[in-house]
Amino acid sequence: MSVITLLTDFGHRDAFVGTMKGVILGICPEARIVDLSHGITPQRIEEGAFILRTAYPYFPDGTVHVAVVDPGVGGQRRALVVETPRHRFVGPDNGLFAHVFARETDLRVISVTEPRFMLPRVSNTFHGRDVFAPVAAHLTLGRSVTDFGPEIDDYHTGSITEPSVHGGGITGHVLHIDRYGNIITDIGESLFLETTREKRFQIRLAGLSLDRVCASYDEAEGGTALAILDSAGLLEIAVNGGSAAGLLDAAPGDRVDVEVA
Amino acid sequence: MSVITLLTDFGHRDAFVGTMKGVILGICPEARIVDLSHGITPQRIEEGAFILRTAYPYFPDGTVHVAVVDPGVGGQRRALVVETPRHRFVGPDNGLFAHVFARETDLRVISVTEPRFMLPRVSNTFHGRDVFAPVAAHLTLGRSVTDFGPEIDDYHTGSITEPSVHGGGITGHVLHIDRYGNIITDIGESLFLETTREKRFQIRLAGLSLDRVCASYDEAEGGTALAILDSAGLLEIAVNGGSAAGLLDAAPGDRVDVEVA
Amino acid sequence: MSVITLLTDFGHRDAFVGTMKGVILGICPEARIVDLSHGITPQRIEEGAFILRTAYPYFPDGTVHVAVVDPGVGGQRRALVVETPRHRFVGPDNGLFAHVFARETDLRVISVTEPRFMLPRVSNTFHGRDVFAPVAAHLTLGRSVTDFGPEIDDYHTGSITEPSVHGGGITGHVLHIDRYGNIITDIGESLFLETTREKRFQIRLAGLSLDRVCASYDEAEGGTALAILDSAGLLEIAVNGGSAAGLLDAAPGDRVDVEVA
Repeated sequence: MSVITLLTDFGHRDAFVGTMKGVILGICPEARIVDLSHGITPQRIEEGAFILRTAYPYFPDGTVHVAVVDPGVGGQRRALVVETPRHRFVGPDNGLFAHVFARETDLRVISVTEPRFMLPRVSNTFHGRDVFAPVAAHLTLGRSVTDFGPEIDDYHTGSITEPSVHGGGITGHVLHIDRYGNIITDIGESLFLETTREKRFQIRLAGLSLDRVCASYDEAEGGTALAILDSAGLLEIAVNGGSAAGLLDAAPGDRVDVEVA
Repeated sequence: MSVITLLTDFGHRDAFVGTMKGVILGICPEARIVDLSHGITPQRIEEGAFILRTAYPYFPDGTVHVAVVDPGVGGQRRALVVETPRHRFVGPDNGLFAHVFARETDLRVISVTEPRFMLPRVSNTFHGRDVFAPVAAHLTLGRSVTDFGPEIDDYHTGSITEPSVHGGGITGHVLHIDRYGNIITDIGESLFLETTREKRFQIRLAGLSLDRVCASYDEAEGGTALAILDSAGLLEIAVNGGSAAGLLDAAPGDRVDVEVA
Repeated sequence: MSVITLLTDFGHRDAFVGTMKGVILGICPEARIVDLSHGITPQRIEEGAFILRTAYPYFPDGTVHVAVVDPGVGGQRRALVVETPRHRFVGPDNGLFAHVFARETDLRVISVTEPRFMLPRVSNTFHGRDVFAPVAAHLTLGRSVTDFGPEIDDYHTGSITEPSVHGGGITGHVLHIDRYGNIITDIGESLFLETTREKRFQIRLAGLSLDRVCASYDEAEGGTALAILDSAGLLEIAVNGGSAAGLLDAAPGDRVDVEVA
């Protein structure tokens, strides 16, 4: 069993992703390759980091996750292998694994320096093909992470917004707008439930105010906004049958308040 | 041999599809997973139903087709397994299998109620991950459909437009606009050929009138419209080297007439 | 080991690609299918030809590459199998394999005529499903290319721009704009390095002039243009953290000059 996932900002017109798969299959013909996303907005590291977070815990033990959103390709930024008890992660040292670092307590980070696990010629512009794909394939063949280079502790941890709790409730942020225009916040389910337990509350965002949380989209009237606890365990603002982001014009980083009485 | 296909409106930026694959591979590591489409217009059940129809008959016996266009996720709509002699289908009870119901004469429909085939915690918003993916994986492992819940006959059959035949010919509808702007109608090849046999005819749509059917796009001059019998066995209006939908401004549901003399 | 790659202009909403995979798996259940691209601009053969070129060399020996950008589907154009020492290619005879023909010295070209390797009924509009997918699957099962039809030498070689070298330097062309807006030229790395060795030079395109080549994007200031030798071995104009094509409004076919002093 040898699953490799790929998450990039490479898009779907060029064959960058397919080329990485060719390199992987040349080294590890048995690899099962799964696409997580190749539609990350170009060079938006935070977006890639969040989307990786929503997906990786659902993969079997032993999975290798390759992530490439890499504006610094060819420059001084290092290449990493991150090992957790269940998974390994391969990608640039630029904060793309921010949520992995925040959620996993037992981890080891390697700076990849061994050229024998890269393609013979490493280009200036495509380390997905020349470094990350072959490293992932060699990991899948059973290599120890320490074969790839020295362990480091000064890696780039990335930046993640965190909600703050105060007397009046919670102040959080928009984290992501998904395919449907759902507005995902950084306010976690357990924090939200504890803070609002047996209290009246108002969820406020961009002029909208909601005083309850629904258990399904269709509890709200068609075309109207609602709050829901979503599949990533986060507070989400949605519109039944429509786009909350279209209605509210919200963007990642915007403030969201939960006010308790 | 254990093929699972996926058809959704999940798009290509979020990792919803990849997450489903992680769940499937965790349960059934041998599954061969094939994407049918993830570009269905959000919440457009009819579009998903039609695209599923064009693809599923070409898959090997035993294939499990998972389809998720699911505006009612988390609400009262049931989850279905549909069994035909060659295939099984998994998805919401909302009409997404309309063409399967219309074309397959020997079928059995199950309402999925057994929680042991779902993830331990079922979210409000992502049954693709929590219900449909694990159910498909368990089906692929060899489970009988009746293990998943009771057989039902009050499932949602969905709505499909049908052409009407009358003294003057056929009145049909636009069913789909494809990638190239080709306009696919609901007028089937055998109905069309029988109705027009040894007769003069006019195909009329949005001010356009065509009096013959071509055997290839390049039988028409570049940039001009033509009629052709397409790969799904349906009458199609196309433009050689261009977009018929761009030229004619047609949309699903629009009327198409075949007038015979 | 039996890898089949797919490159098409079929897009991601219709299930054309998924249907081809169903046909392949029905004939060759062991095939490993890899997507190179399905986002080729509709009917842009040159774009597909270039993108195929960037990817195919990275695949293992024995890989079968299927490419379908096929405006002449259903008409007189032939179906080809092209054999090189390492790979085989399947697709229409319309220039889509131009770069394969230009780069591979040892090749054999077959016109596919044997109906037993096609689906029983070949449609007017979808030879990807009815001809190319089954031919690729049968090749993967071990068939000799000569089983599929006669060898030919009057195939369509396609058109590729070539840079010209003259007293003042090199005159080349824009070949491709990639996902990031990077402008890929047809000026190869070795030609560029030989022509500019120990000389001052100016790279000129659309009013821009650059006098050096960077080894990574971040050698240029954020938002400014640079030249770099890219992962396909071609001279590229890029913008650090931005889009060169957005800044310069360049398009495939545009002239690029390298002037040496």
